[in-house]
Amino acid sequence: MKKERVAVIGSGNWGSAITRIMANNVIEHGNLFERDINMWVFEELVNNRKLTELINEKHENVKYLPGYKLPNNVRAVPDLIETVQEATILVFVVPHQFVLKVCEKLKGKISSDVKAISLIKGFHVSESGLKPITHVISEYLNINVASLSGANIANEIADEKFSETTIGYTNVKEGELFKILFQTKYFRVGIIDDVVGVELCGALKNVVAIGAGIVDGLKMGDNTKAAVIRIGLLEMRKFMQTFYSGIKDETFFQSCGIADVITSCYGGRNRKVAEAFVLTKKPFEQLEKEMLNGQKLQGTLTAKEVYQVTKRKDLEKEFPLFTTIYRIAYDGLAPERIVKDIV
Amino acid sequence: MKKERVAVIGSGNWGSAITRIMANNVIEHGNLFERDINMWVFEELVNNRKLTELINEKHENVKYLPGYKLPNNVRAVPDLIETVQEATILVFVVPHQFVLKVCEKLKGKISSDVKAISLIKGFHVSESGLKPITHVISEYLNINVASLSGANIANEIADEKFSETTIGYTNVKEGELFKILFQTKYFRVGIIDDVVGVELCGALKNVVAIGAGIVDGLKMGDNTKAAVIRIGLLEMRKFMQTFYSGIKDETFFQSCGIADVITSCYGGRNRKVAEAFVLTKKPFEQLEKEMLNGQKLQGTLTAKEVYQVTKRKDLEKEFPLFTTIYRIAYDGLAPERIVKDIV
Repeated sequence: MKKERVAVIGSGNWGSAITRIMANNVIEHGNLFERDINMWVFEELVNNRKLTELINEKHENVKYLPGYKLPNNVRAVPDLIETVQEATILVFVVPHQFVLKVCEKLKGKISSDVKAISLIKGFHVSESGLKPITHVISEYLNINVASLSGANIANEIADEKFSETTIGYTNVKEGELFKILFQTKYFRVGIIDDVVGVELCGALKNVVAIGAGIVDGLKMGDNTKAAVIRIGLLEMRKFMQTFYSGIKDETFFQSCGIADVITSCYGGRNRKVAEAFVLTKKPFEQLEKEMLNGQKLQGTLTAKEVYQVTKRKDLEKEFPLFTTIYRIAYDGLAPERIVKDIV
Repeated sequence: MKKERVAVIGSGNWGSAITRIMANNVIEHGNLFERDINMWVFEELVNNRKLTELINEKHENVKYLPGYKLPNNVRAVPDLIETVQEATILVFVVPHQFVLKVCEKLKGKISSDVKAISLIKGFHVSESGLKPITHVISEYLNINVASLSGANIANEIADEKFSETTIGYTNVKEGELFKILFQTKYFRVGIIDDVVGVELCGALKNVVAIGAGIVDGLKMGDNTKAAVIRIGLLEMRKFMQTFYSGIKDETFFQSCGIADVITSCYGGRNRKVAEAFVLTKKPFEQLEKEMLNGQKLQGTLTAKEVYQVTKRKDLEKEFPLFTTIYRIAYDGLAPERIVKDIV
């Protein structure tokens, strides 16, 4: 049997943390996998040195996951095409705004029997609505694409603290192979036949986290926060089941569902900035500059994208929490309406 | 049509808070309900005066819900039989250790067309296993019994902060009637055809909260906590679906399910005492004395009851989290095993 060769496309905080795991696993399961893993690194200078050179010299992503060694079977590669050469498994873990660019470069260069899995959060906004990233990759490259998402704060996983994740697979044999590639004693993988459900949970939970942050800012107490989280989870499910096919109820019981929603609503930047929005009355744009170094907040952006889709289909009243969160963030609606307009 | 007359059996913190709501609702829906509500109060002396007299004079449960007025259509009654006379709806909200005593007194005195709903948390431990409180009441009194449970901290509801609850009904018409009796603008009621599922969530969530507290004490981070909560919710579901019939997956998406689990795992005494158990290494019994004025912790007690049931059926390995929590609380197992023994 031919062994699988893994290539990782992306090398940020999450990409580096998950590559540490895979690099150990391909060695442990040497009967299934080739030893060496190429990791595509978007080249940049760090202290006047190329990041790829630093990674390959120090076996550490000194910029995005400092303090954690990468196994020495990981090789940082600045050229995308070189990265994927001979690979039979592609792991996509770039920020979602880079997906199209990456796919355009890879188009026509990937064999149709290559397996792929996407760890990317977010949607691709297209004319027809919100397209799952796995579909974008799949259409460009003409390959099956699985998804992985869960309550996975990268640094806690690098610290080898116990956590879980979920893989949505297109066929069960592939799902089991990916499970072997990703699972460790402290990083537990569940697999489920629902690629889109798994990945969209990772995008939509950020909207719910904005809602949780608003409730925190209003100091409305534990009952209210739990209610908003629950309603948010149900609107996530309804949104997915309205606009996509094959979404399973069971997906929401997995790590990608409730667990990730909980983590995002009690920790995480979306909750934090939304709380500050209520407390300081500053607009989100200003808070992004002050609190996130100008990075865009995912939750408010996704709330807007979701609102546009529901509005276009005249369904915004079917999603009262999502719609209210959008209006609070973008339309000047008073934060207090969050619990009034969902009744 | 004959109007319904409501009697409340119980007058603690939660009983008083929910009676405030019902007392307003029976007036608002005067076409369906008689105006006056009897509330059974276990007589005791407060500052040398009878509690029932104080409540009826001040329209406030000065001992268990001080600071919140009870509408004046609520009458505190020290005699149980007098309380339920003429009642067509019984609302049970006594601590679960008093259920049998109450039922024995009421036995033979309740017409079989009386409707009942139980807000009581916990099991009745019998020789055949763990019996839902609604079954106990139903068997004693030969009436249908619905259940109500949710993310409902009593004082937050008395403060009229937004929250949700769930009613498990035996028939939908009755479910809708109870919804009218309990729902307000700020207290939203969902109804579902799953009496036992709703009530047992309220009992089992305390075991999960012990697990969450242990993780907090170990400072294992957000991923781990979310994972333990998720696994806990799934063991709750599995336990119920193994030992009871008619439990619906959908129940766990309601307020009684995920929302109540979340509230209990981030606030609440079970979480707090379990955290202290890890940090101080004192036994639970001692912590109960120090932190709870000697009151018993519900979560550890339920963990033990659940363990005995699963052990008797040789199924304790099917519930690794519940079993590990039991062993940490009662068998001296190291708290760190909480994430090792569930893999």
